[in-house]
Amino acid sequence: MSNNKKVVSEITAMDEDFAQWYTDIVKKAELVDYSSVKGCMILRPYGYGIWENIQKVLDEQFKETGHENVYMPMFIPESLLQKEKDHVEGFAPEVAWVTHGGSEPLAEKLCVRPTSETLFCEHYAKTIQSYNDLPKLYNQWCSVVRWEKTTRPFLRTTEFLWQEGHTAHATAEESKAETIQMLNIYAEFCKDYLAIPVVKGQKTEKEKFAGAEATYTIESLMHDGKALQTGTSHNFADNFAKAFDITYTDKTGKEQHVHQSSWGMTTRLIGAVIMVHGDDSGLVLPPRIAPTQVVIVPVAQHKEGVLEKAAELQAEIKKYARVKTDASDKRPGWKYSEYEMKGVPIRLEVGPKDIEKGQVALVRRDTREKIFVPMEELATRIPQLLDEVHEGLYAKALAHREESTHVARNFDELKQIAEEKPGFIKAMWCGELECEEKLKEELTITSRCMPFEQEELASDCVCCGKPAKTMVYWGKAY
Amino acid sequence: MSNNKKVVSEITAMDEDFAQWYTDIVKKAELVDYSSVKGCMILRPYGYGIWENIQKVLDEQFKETGHENVYMPMFIPESLLQKEKDHVEGFAPEVAWVTHGGSEPLAEKLCVRPTSETLFCEHYAKTIQSYNDLPKLYNQWCSVVRWEKTTRPFLRTTEFLWQEGHTAHATAEESKAETIQMLNIYAEFCKDYLAIPVVKGQKTEKEKFAGAEATYTIESLMHDGKALQTGTSHNFADNFAKAFDITYTDKTGKEQHVHQSSWGMTTRLIGAVIMVHGDDSGLVLPPRIAPTQVVIVPVAQHKEGVLEKAAELQAEIKKYARVKTDASDKRPGWKYSEYEMKGVPIRLEVGPKDIEKGQVALVRRDTREKIFVPMEELATRIPQLLDEVHEGLYAKALAHREESTHVARNFDELKQIAEEKPGFIKAMWCGELECEEKLKEELTITSRCMPFEQEELASDCVCCGKPAKTMVYWGKAY
Repeated sequence: MSNNKKVVSEITAMDEDFAQWYTDIVKKAELVDYSSVKGCMILRPYGYGIWENIQKVLDEQFKETGHENVYMPMFIPESLLQKEKDHVEGFAPEVAWVTHGGSEPLAEKLCVRPTSETLFCEHYAKTIQSYNDLPKLYNQWCSVVRWEKTTRPFLRTTEFLWQEGHTAHATAEESKAETIQMLNIYAEFCKDYLAIPVVKGQKTEKEKFAGAEATYTIESLMHDGKALQTGTSHNFADNFAKAFDITYTDKTGKEQHVHQSSWGMTTRLIGAVIMVHGDDSGLVLPPRIAPTQVVIVPVAQHKEGVLEKAAELQAEIKKYARVKTDASDKRPGWKYSEYEMKGVPIRLEVGPKDIEKGQVALVRRDTREKIFVPMEELATRIPQLLDEVHEGLYAKALAHREESTHVARNFDELKQIAEEKPGFIKAMWCGELECEEKLKEELTITSRCMPFEQEELASDCVCCGKPAKTMVYWGKAY
Repeated sequence: MSNNKKVVSEITAMDEDFAQWYTDIVKKAELVDYSSVKGCMILRPYGYGIWENIQKVLDEQFKETGHENVYMPMFIPESLLQKEKDHVEGFAPEVAWVTHGGSEPLAEKLCVRPTSETLFCEHYAKTIQSYNDLPKLYNQWCSVVRWEKTTRPFLRTTEFLWQEGHTAHATAEESKAETIQMLNIYAEFCKDYLAIPVVKGQKTEKEKFAGAEATYTIESLMHDGKALQTGTSHNFADNFAKAFDITYTDKTGKEQHVHQSSWGMTTRLIGAVIMVHGDDSGLVLPPRIAPTQVVIVPVAQHKEGVLEKAAELQAEIKKYARVKTDASDKRPGWKYSEYEMKGVPIRLEVGPKDIEKGQVALVRRDTREKIFVPMEELATRIPQLLDEVHEGLYAKALAHREESTHVARNFDELKQIAEEKPGFIKAMWCGELECEEKLKEELTITSRCMPFEQEELASDCVCCGKPAKTMVYWGKAY
């Protein structure tokens, strides 16, 4: 670790006020701006750049697994939204309604899509005839709207960007396999690109998606010990197919209902990145989704040859990393703070002395470690260092989650942990809604998921003491 | 030209009913489907795949010229839309209004963006302080909504996908240069990727964008002789800056208004591709934006070794072209029709005899020319052939435009051409709105643009006979 002087940041300290710290980063790192539309955010170039990198990777993975992109209308007629009973009950209270086109009132009001199951179902009902048409593996990238009362950038906004996959299959087994496959892709993406460890599991009946037979989820733990639902994947079985009459003729000539899934991840992922990796100097970006992976800061740039060398290095590094140079006339200390705030993984400093020695200084954003590297080794060392940063971030996040995951065997333990120790709580549950509601009301914790990796921590429900059916991750959540 | 039997297509002939021919292609090539939302279309995988290819190229070109992507909210409060007088007059009659969120009426109604100048202006007013913050070169990919009375897939829909660039500059010269630069990028894109020749020029006062100082346009000619506005680029000068109070401090410390531009291209481009290149067998796609560039159709595929060879070829061709194999149990003739309908540029046929001879047959979609190529030459021959198809399509479209461009020197000539010869009409104009309106009313032709490449065809206005100021391209337009 170097003795590099830590530049004092202008943001609230995490431990002082986590919510304010979050808001400060979001603004000062220039990720978003507020607009005059309540609850909607502007994604500025730096914030949108992160989303573009996320999109690129996910989109490739969707395509590799046979999915195709489409685009559905943003409006849903009221009558279409109402076709599936649970679905409309879940979403109608929080949709935006278009009632006028130009100066004319509409004959039927339209909601701005909160999610597009109903549109995909209508399309599938028209286009699927025989087993030859299956599976349909569609995805779309778009924005959706949910009329939220209280909003926070990335975490809960009236409009947000996401992808929503919608698939139709011949059998129940296939739709379940698809649902699980996509959850696994999400989990691996979080690990391999966002450096965020997740718990995979199933939502309880209470927490599942409106209209689904089963909802699977990945849950991650933020720095403040609160949980974040990071991605979900829903198995609809034939629920929607029955409501929308989506059938196909099987190989024996028999009419069958299709089985469906849907799955989505959103710009909320950027909120997760901030709250898992950030520190008191600002954002800390996992290298694989960072818009800029290396920022070159020339030192004593007025001296002969410095800017030329910086340009030369940039041209070279561009071949293997996303790099930019800040040759503005701000003082180096200012620049250091700025790129720390923006969480750029590696800062490269190059000045007259470095040039003389044929070396540069590389400073890691996450550990602030500074190393001197001969210029000719950069092509090996930078990619390596980016991987090391990624691994380091993941290991740190995993250690934090492990330290913050507690086991409760009875109600007293549960109560004490819920009140005193932020984090996940693993505890057994009888499966009854009553207990879930009691825990929410008395301890303000909710069931995050019934993890795929079950443990038998005790034989009785942590709440009612009756025989337990499942281990559940509980927690306070965003 | 081979003697390949032409499979009869199931679409209306172009000459019989061009509009129906267009609608047939759009449906049968599986580009779009209609939804239950009036005027909105569903972009199916094949249609969206074309858009993705268009996006990819344009996005790269925007980034190479220094532009960054952002995302603005889809809603605009009524009061914000009203800030620029001409702009609100132009757009308010055709916007969709959100009046309720959940079950609550909104305090202020919100329109769904018909275009986002007002949102960008609001953001720029907040984030631009000094000359150091300029230029701002932003773009966004999104959908917009305009409440249209009559709609046609791609050409005019209530909701459509587009990109909208919005920039802010220190000087009038810079915003004009940006506006022209983007128009040139659009024109080159049409030529190099869509194989569509365009006329570059300026819109008249009557036809310019609501709130712009000048609108530049690229106009292309469809197969039926109607014109299509294919992309536009607007120079706002400081019109919006004054309405939204967007100022910066210049190097001398003086407060100045910024100068702005905006520019956009839409899914309408796909409509242009259909109407410029399509024929009576269906779509003809320019190779560089075709989702599939080569389709492999195995012949006598039940015979030993055929499907294996097809798979081998696919693995090889994948390295340099977008390729798929249709190994379904449909008859080859069916497959030929299907991929002709979908406009796949090259069909590769491979059967037992070809394998014996170490060759395959390549059939061009545009000319139906069939050539036999030794397998070991495919890696050279396919990319070459794709380029030849592109060049061929462009040359054909250019020839058609030239044949269909007529000169009128006086009103009688103009009248005769307008009534008898579909296409562009070049004629001189005095610059008065009155003449423009008269031509629209009496001959149903509108001014397409005042081309950058001016010619002095006559000294007097084709309509009123007064001294002419400009040569104009006139035409019937989509």
